[in-house]
Amino acid sequence: MFEHATAVTRIDPAGEVDGLIRSTYRAEVQPDWDILGNANGGYLLAIVGRALLAATGRPDPISVTAHYLNPGRPGPVEIDVDIVRAGRRFTAARATMRNAENKPVITVLGTFGDLVGQADGAPSWTDGAPPDLAPLSDCPAVSSQPTAPPFMSRIDLRLDPRDSGWAYGQKSGVPEIRAWFRLLDDEPLTSAALLLVVDALPPTIFNLDLPVGWAPTVELTAHVRTRPVQGWLRLGYRTRYISSGFMEVDGTVWDESDTLVAQSRQLALLPRG
Amino acid sequence: MFEHATAVTRIDPAGEVDGLIRSTYRAEVQPDWDILGNANGGYLLAIVGRALLAATGRPDPISVTAHYLNPGRPGPVEIDVDIVRAGRRFTAARATMRNAENKPVITVLGTFGDLVGQADGAPSWTDGAPPDLAPLSDCPAVSSQPTAPPFMSRIDLRLDPRDSGWAYGQKSGVPEIRAWFRLLDDEPLTSAALLLVVDALPPTIFNLDLPVGWAPTVELTAHVRTRPVQGWLRLGYRTRYISSGFMEVDGTVWDESDTLVAQSRQLALLPRG
Repeated sequence: MFEHATAVTRIDPAGEVDGLIRSTYRAEVQPDWDILGNANGGYLLAIVGRALLAATGRPDPISVTAHYLNPGRPGPVEIDVDIVRAGRRFTAARATMRNAENKPVITVLGTFGDLVGQADGAPSWTDGAPPDLAPLSDCPAVSSQPTAPPFMSRIDLRLDPRDSGWAYGQKSGVPEIRAWFRLLDDEPLTSAALLLVVDALPPTIFNLDLPVGWAPTVELTAHVRTRPVQGWLRLGYRTRYISSGFMEVDGTVWDESDTLVAQSRQLALLPRG
Repeated sequence: MFEHATAVTRIDPAGEVDGLIRSTYRAEVQPDWDILGNANGGYLLAIVGRALLAATGRPDPISVTAHYLNPGRPGPVEIDVDIVRAGRRFTAARATMRNAENKPVITVLGTFGDLVGQADGAPSWTDGAPPDLAPLSDCPAVSSQPTAPPFMSRIDLRLDPRDSGWAYGQKSGVPEIRAWFRLLDDEPLTSAALLLVVDALPPTIFNLDLPVGWAPTVELTAHVRTRPVQGWLRLGYRTRYISSGFMEVDGTVWDESDTLVAQSRQLALLPRG
């Protein structure tokens, strides 16, 4: 379960470090949330996100940015959280996850608050829409693919068949992935779980005929707009600019009420030839 | 000049704080880079960016995220920079700018490196293009508008007339702003200056008929893809989702060689009614 796999426990009473309130948490990176031995980036972010929510006392992530520093291997980790500013409605805080060798795995900066009531009286407007996604019944589970990494068995991800032919050697030519997502066993979707969701898809570049096997994330930023209603999420992710050795992966997450629940963008590094 | 207005001076020899290398810089937030008395957010980010570049010893910002904590008023500030991880090609570092009352103004997390040679051998692909922008000669300088804030006289910003009618009561109905940008007096554009550029436009929502006068930035992330060639930059920024009391402002920056030089997104807060 996501809730268990991202659990954090405070190990020290909060104290002051360099003028900021510091709380330290312990967590366990689970062995089966990986891709080729490295824990999924969204999974690592969700663990740190839960430590940040606990330390700030706020229920929801609003905007969270992670920089990926070293691969996350299964095993115990510690997360130091520092409160940068606690305001009336929002708290800004930062955190770093370190592994058992005291190496930093990811470092995170975010703003946290309460999304319930946030929209009261605020205007709304959109020209966006949920992704144009094939019906759920037409979308096979990624975990059923022969090459699916262990991580894909920890979530229920169903890819639009137009975007998933790469698994069978049929690249679409468009660096786009659209998918249905839910947690296993009807586990409820929290706003913290959206930090996992925004990095759950296979790389968009699998759909391009480029000599690229892997594109490690340098940085990922997620904006959480509202708590999702329970049910399936729809994800639409796309890359527009592969240049200067980098690419972005940009997309939106929608819930069953047709509400935008999260928007995210990551910068990934492309290997040099 | 941008170079002068964002200058930073190291005031302490680098030391170790909480296991990380700390360098502290002093800077002066200039009085005429403001909007209604508050320094422009990109200007503040560029000051912190220069401290981060100095402390990391890297020439270019790669991905930089700022969270805005308190208004930036003119006057002296201090910037503490901590190196989170110095790798072979990139350094991740964080920084916080504090004002004379020791209040945090902005806090920043970024990855820095050398963009020259970064693209060697890496694949390239795009389906994006520079903004559809009116010719420079048809775009009036923002500084000539009767309501232009002082900040607009510190840069040379020319708005597409289709997007700038709001200054005269003619909102376009589309939350989009396209513009030409350069620094004054042919000052060279560095990659650090792009941190200013990505937050230089008037709010996209000025083009919508909403009861919103101000939308403070919660968080801004900029990806710098390459150093710009000298000349005019073209900016295309747009908002797609105004919901839950927030909106994003998302866009790209292109140089005269038709190269994408930066991409950015910010999350802004909408006032409650």
